Amino acid sequence: MFKIILYPTDFSDTAGKSLDYLKQLKNAGAEKIVLLNVIHQRVLDTLETVHKAAYFQDARYHEDRDEAELNLTKDRQNKLAPIAVELEAAGFEVKIRIEKGYPVKEILKVEKEEAVSAIVLGSHGRNNFRSARIGSVSEKVIRRAVSTVLLVKR
Amino acid sequence: MFKIILYPTDFSDTAGKSLDYLKQLKNAGAEKIVLLNVIHQRVLDTLETVHKAAYFQDARYHEDRDEAELNLTKDRQNKLAPIAVELEAAGFEVKIRIEKGYPVKEILKVEKEEAVSAIVLGSHGRNNFRSARIGSVSEKVIRRAVSTVLLVKR
Repeated sequence: MFKIILYPTDFSDTAGKSLDYLKQLKNAGAEKIVLLNVIHQRVLDTLETVHKAAYFQDARYHEDRDEAELNLTKDRQNKLAPIAVELEAAGFEVKIRIEKGYPVKEILKVEKEEAVSAIVLGSHGRNNFRSARIGSVSEKVIRRAVSTVLLVKR
Repeated sequence: MFKIILYPTDFSDTAGKSLDYLKQLKNAGAEKIVLLNVIHQRVLDTLETVHKAAYFQDARYHEDRDEAELNLTKDRQNKLAPIAVELEAAGFEVKIRIEKGYPVKEILKVEKEEAVSAIVLGSHGRNNFRSARIGSVSEKVIRRAVSTVLLVKR
């Protein structure tokens, strides 16, 4: 029921709180955690625009843009690494995935690809207003996911 | 994190499936289950209407109506009893609550009164269309609950 758990994180506080719940699920049979971070399409589009503008349409802007994207990916890897270490120390097998695109779509794609049993989700991401009852990404994932969802409130 | 769990049930299939998840949470620290069934206000209103009509406004219709309501409550108790037995056999302390009113409001009231740590909820109730991604009661509870919610999908 909880064997393979998908844990999407955007490094927000609520996502961090979810980590404690994940660990608690160890004794309920959780074995493997798929640790996911999505680089938002908006961020990628911004990189594209910024570098294109800086080079005045020179085709070589692509090299710089690709390097920037690589650095961004490295940054995410660096942020995921200590979480993976923490989960491994708690006895889990951990798989890290960094995807590019739209969060809801990517989360549901990974849910399917990794055949997860459950998703542990923070109720709010980094971009959500404090006043919102629940973040838009979380809300959509809850609706569309096939798996059981543990929604950790702020 | 999972010490006291609120488990609202309308005896639907998805609510039944939630029972397996509840048991699984025993090892994650769950100790007490608050087993809740709500007698919907619509049902109570119907009782009122039907008995009032049968008695042609005779004030004594109240006696019959009250008896009908009592029988309804007994019926719910009979349906909750085997679930309580099953949960007790799994090692939980169980508290049964039957509330009258609107499900979302009653669930949130009991969440507060019983100081629950988490809510285990089926994604669909008895009255939801198969095609709906998530039932309306579940959706509202997810939004408004303060506690962590485990949403069990159909």
